[in-house]
Amino acid sequence: MFPVVVVHGGAGHIPKERSEKSMSGLCSAARAGYVILRGGGSSMDAVVEVVRQLENNPSFNAGCGSVLNAKGEVEMDAIVMDGKALGSGAVSGVCNIANPIQLARLVMNKTSHVCLTSEGANQFARSMGVPEVPPESLITEYSRMRWTKNLAVDADPVECQMGKMGTVGAVAVDSEGNVACATSTGGMLNKMEGRVGDTPCIGSGGYADNLVGAVSTTGHGEAIMKVTLARLILFHMEQGQSVEAASDLGLAYMKSRVGGLGGVVTVDPRGHWAARFSSHQMAWAAAQKDTVHYGLYSGENFTQSIDDPL
Amino acid sequence: MFPVVVVHGGAGHIPKERSEKSMSGLCSAARAGYVILRGGGSSMDAVVEVVRQLENNPSFNAGCGSVLNAKGEVEMDAIVMDGKALGSGAVSGVCNIANPIQLARLVMNKTSHVCLTSEGANQFARSMGVPEVPPESLITEYSRMRWTKNLAVDADPVECQMGKMGTVGAVAVDSEGNVACATSTGGMLNKMEGRVGDTPCIGSGGYADNLVGAVSTTGHGEAIMKVTLARLILFHMEQGQSVEAASDLGLAYMKSRVGGLGGVVTVDPRGHWAARFSSHQMAWAAAQKDTVHYGLYSGENFTQSIDDPL
Repeated sequence: MFPVVVVHGGAGHIPKERSEKSMSGLCSAARAGYVILRGGGSSMDAVVEVVRQLENNPSFNAGCGSVLNAKGEVEMDAIVMDGKALGSGAVSGVCNIANPIQLARLVMNKTSHVCLTSEGANQFARSMGVPEVPPESLITEYSRMRWTKNLAVDADPVECQMGKMGTVGAVAVDSEGNVACATSTGGMLNKMEGRVGDTPCIGSGGYADNLVGAVSTTGHGEAIMKVTLARLILFHMEQGQSVEAASDLGLAYMKSRVGGLGGVVTVDPRGHWAARFSSHQMAWAAAQKDTVHYGLYSGENFTQSIDDPL
Repeated sequence: MFPVVVVHGGAGHIPKERSEKSMSGLCSAARAGYVILRGGGSSMDAVVEVVRQLENNPSFNAGCGSVLNAKGEVEMDAIVMDGKALGSGAVSGVCNIANPIQLARLVMNKTSHVCLTSEGANQFARSMGVPEVPPESLITEYSRMRWTKNLAVDADPVECQMGKMGTVGAVAVDSEGNVACATSTGGMLNKMEGRVGDTPCIGSGGYADNLVGAVSTTGHGEAIMKVTLARLILFHMEQGQSVEAASDLGLAYMKSRVGGLGGVVTVDPRGHWAARFSSHQMAWAAAQKDTVHYGLYSGENFTQSIDDPL
């Protein structure tokens, strides 16, 4: 069994001027996750570190760089799940926190609950000594520009659609065969205040079970929830499907049944992995056997050695 | 195909002095739902009316009668799902609303989202003209008493456990073969502020799909989420299991895998139904073919005619 980490930076339509930065951010995060696994670290440590790096990277719709809601504010959702005992932690509607993924992990480790929302989640953060950051520190020029653009009466629906891209997530298998997932997002551009998407919803935004595998999802959140996409893919794997086939079956079902597009990264406990999507693009990267794989369009699988300079 | 509605009033340990009121409330609600179905109404109309009545009944942990969180406040979660197109609406962490189930239905019908949380959900309620009620109108003497008792240093853990009982839910099949589910709760007694349980989490607190059936769950919310209990039971039905066998398989898996107890009401689109639980008790009632069935302990199935006086 070869440890592996697979990372996505969101499904959808990624503007050309942003795709290079997205790809280098993903490859860099995948390397960081892989170094943890190679050093004997846990899959949970790896996925949280990967997602923390992507939250801190303003190219993605998570943490700093999150899209803005209808009111022009950042409200973030995140989830982690540990395949060993199905432990999970999630937060929804949190603001003023740099790294919701770390807060989700604290919910898993330090409370008897699975999910905390809004002000209750922020209060918990304070009680754990998680520093509050000024709201504007999470808002990029680009996010503000797109928000303003989408408010215009003649807003282009394709531009609006782009607001859905950029959720980040990761799955990993460590040297002991433990699987884990982590997903973090700013949600949908111009979403209603308080809108909770698929990300913090267990079985939708992610799921991890050492007996089957792990999935992290991205795409049209409402569609993902209606088919509980992550759990659906793992059910297909329980029925004997491979990581690729199960991922494709789940995505095809979502498209045909509720008309939704998206993408997933999937692993099984033996280290097989897949990055699949029904959307136009999904930025992804994977690291295994000292090689980084990455791609953006369907069919792409570029590689670089882990020893190559970034 | 015979229309049916199946209702639960929560899994757990129901104090003797409250069981009679619970049972009569459930039978009355099941009758009301059945009358809607018999008159050609939809399964969604039936489950929402059933749950609305139970929210208004102070004997249950939903709406008026909700348990209090650690701060002594009511925070409620609810979900509806329509099996026709997998449409769903949910709210989490709402307060000052008499009927969260109606708000969940409005989220489904009037927004492009599936779930709204906390202040955002309350703002949406205001925008829809849903009246706000004073917080104390949802708090019963009994809720206050239990909350105070559980704060005591020598609090009895069995009493604490009782705090989990009383979530309400319903599933139904209408004369057109459409299935629907609805679940509503005040959550766990002395929960942290902002704790979101299984109820508003699609696939955990409920799921409905015309091709398979519908489930509404109750019990230990965190355990239900870890196994996405409602969706799990429907997967077993997709594999050919009956409503009873699938429900029992799901509950047994939850017990063995994560040590959680609970209960479910389940229907398939042909009108087969089940009310099953792994907890000590679950108050339930079902109405089909002009007969009301009900029970509290394992193996019970009392009946009354729909024409009998209540």
